[in-house]
Amino acid sequence: MRICDRTGVHSAKISPKIRALNNPPETKTQLLENLKLDDSNSIRLPAADLHRQVSAILQGVGTPPEHAETTAKILVSASLRGVDTHGVGNVVRYSQSIEDDTYTVPQIVETISETDTTALLSCGNGLGFVAAHHGMEMSIAKAREFGIGMVTIRDGHHIGMVGYYPMMAADEDMIGMAMTNASPAVRPALGARPRVGTNPIAFAAPAGKERDFVFDMATSTVASGKIALARRLGVPMPVGWAVTAEGEPITVPPADRSEAWSMNPLGNTREQGSHKGYGLGLVVDILCGVLSGGGFGTQLSAGENMTWTMAIDISKFRDVDDFKSMMDDMIRELHATPALPGADRVLVAGDPEADAAEDRTLNGVPVEHRQYDEMRQRAVGLGVEVFI
Amino acid sequence: MRICDRTGVHSAKISPKIRALNNPPETKTQLLENLKLDDSNSIRLPAADLHRQVSAILQGVGTPPEHAETTAKILVSASLRGVDTHGVGNVVRYSQSIEDDTYTVPQIVETISETDTTALLSCGNGLGFVAAHHGMEMSIAKAREFGIGMVTIRDGHHIGMVGYYPMMAADEDMIGMAMTNASPAVRPALGARPRVGTNPIAFAAPAGKERDFVFDMATSTVASGKIALARRLGVPMPVGWAVTAEGEPITVPPADRSEAWSMNPLGNTREQGSHKGYGLGLVVDILCGVLSGGGFGTQLSAGENMTWTMAIDISKFRDVDDFKSMMDDMIRELHATPALPGADRVLVAGDPEADAAEDRTLNGVPVEHRQYDEMRQRAVGLGVEVFI
Repeated sequence: MRICDRTGVHSAKISPKIRALNNPPETKTQLLENLKLDDSNSIRLPAADLHRQVSAILQGVGTPPEHAETTAKILVSASLRGVDTHGVGNVVRYSQSIEDDTYTVPQIVETISETDTTALLSCGNGLGFVAAHHGMEMSIAKAREFGIGMVTIRDGHHIGMVGYYPMMAADEDMIGMAMTNASPAVRPALGARPRVGTNPIAFAAPAGKERDFVFDMATSTVASGKIALARRLGVPMPVGWAVTAEGEPITVPPADRSEAWSMNPLGNTREQGSHKGYGLGLVVDILCGVLSGGGFGTQLSAGENMTWTMAIDISKFRDVDDFKSMMDDMIRELHATPALPGADRVLVAGDPEADAAEDRTLNGVPVEHRQYDEMRQRAVGLGVEVFI
Repeated sequence: MRICDRTGVHSAKISPKIRALNNPPETKTQLLENLKLDDSNSIRLPAADLHRQVSAILQGVGTPPEHAETTAKILVSASLRGVDTHGVGNVVRYSQSIEDDTYTVPQIVETISETDTTALLSCGNGLGFVAAHHGMEMSIAKAREFGIGMVTIRDGHHIGMVGYYPMMAADEDMIGMAMTNASPAVRPALGARPRVGTNPIAFAAPAGKERDFVFDMATSTVASGKIALARRLGVPMPVGWAVTAEGEPITVPPADRSEAWSMNPLGNTREQGSHKGYGLGLVVDILCGVLSGGGFGTQLSAGENMTWTMAIDISKFRDVDDFKSMMDDMIRELHATPALPGADRVLVAGDPEADAAEDRTLNGVPVEHRQYDEMRQRAVGLGVEVFI
């Protein structure tokens, strides 16, 4: 085996000129700040109004009220938690997918096989949110009775912010986990073509006095939504997020997926662990796509997503209060870690999102100007009430 | 929140001089090759002889034969699969830990709580291998009956190559998963001190005609055993594996753990996803340490490890042959991915280890000269038979 994985930040093949052009050190921090919404590019709206608007648009294209409400709840949660790439603005494209029959609505979420602890569902080619939410509810109910519940879901679509589903379990004093796979965007380690989805993994566990641990990561270097956001905002990407089929770094966010470029797996280079992000992506493909039979990366069309959820009843192992108290101790210990020179403080997964939710619950949810216009136009076009 | 995580490959604070000194591009590939065993630094021995030697040494310090045999089986499997950092040579330090009463031998593996699908075990402060092996056996038995089995284990020690345990499940047509936590070695994202263990995650799923998917990753950039191996072989580490408390990269492998340096979490820098490796490390701490009550990173002494295992019975979800056939399709698709310029071919998790096992089963297992001498001396010192 040769061990040269030449893309990304460590590559000997990236000339100093390309490196300097792509990622001038002094603007590095700025690049990430550019991806944040602020008063210049967004408008703040009350979460309740956004919920009503999302639900109305979905119902305007034939979604049953209960399914529209579930989807709205999850989209607004993402917007409240600052996960804007997975927020309310996406309702426009979901409504289009319903209108052009890419999604089947009303959908029938069907149980294909089931045991006390497991289930295989079909999402019925409808809104992924609906089946994923149902899957986590089933997982929680099974876990309450039998200790663990696990549900894998085929024939599905986008489920939004994956972290939402494990949070449902944490709210019930359980550990929750969810994953979803997608059509190819990420190259395998050593590979030069996209063959794996960004395949996110989410995990939540309840704390006591501290905030719950809520972890949600794409197995690529960044979520693809970040690349789309960079494109919409017109800012460059850092070197390390994407490469050409020749392994050269890309910093101008591409408009469409193609064989000509790939996102990098978490780790980027062989020396820094690209096989780890790649392997995690395949774990997601196996649990979501192969265990369900819905298909792995290259078997999926753009917009198809298979999903896996699990809930673990902590009380079956040990006293829940003792568990939460130890979670508190862990979180406090981590928060007390001295930060690197130049960094403010050490965070724990879920901190930035909980901070955003506090702010946005109080001050409104920022929505990008373009997405705000699109949502209003969509509501007007469908003849449903305009709430925003 | 400030978002500057200044260590690692992207750091603006690493002077070009330090960068060049630490990681001359032309020797990058060589650095990793230096970590491989070959005829110059090792001797090849038959796996069966190594098994007998490991078992004899463990029994020589009072380990019951059954526990010694289980431990030998797992250590030899690691050596056969090319995971030399977790191989037979480690028997010397385990035997010392038994002799100095750091390990309790004979150990009693006790069931603290149990349901149809779950169990909390105590490793009895003995060999981690014994309890982890028992935990996965329980997980498999529970999964066979109830769909899923999950076991978390406290009061434990090192369990060796974590990938071994999921392979036990894959051999039974199940999906297997295992994790183990450890005392601090890795800094949190944005943090400047070690607070999280290298906390590996392993996952296996059976294929049909192709080789099983077997994935085993530390949640740090590299496993700590790689740093120890680099030290023993006297070769430098690449930039990105470890930093000082000031965030400066370290390339000379340090002899001991201390507050003065940390390994980096997978992802290395904030821009490239350091919060992901860090978050995964905490997932491991939660499932192994908090769910068991055995303790998270900073609550553990060096050499303490809590462990978590899970088995999923594929047949409860769908036909096993169909599952395996889809695994084959996925693996073939990935193998067929065009490689980056300079790379031979795209691999799937488990490929390098299966290649090594084929070679080493036929031609013998390479053991570092120093470890070979140590094992022989240990056997002689204990008055047990010398097989190697």
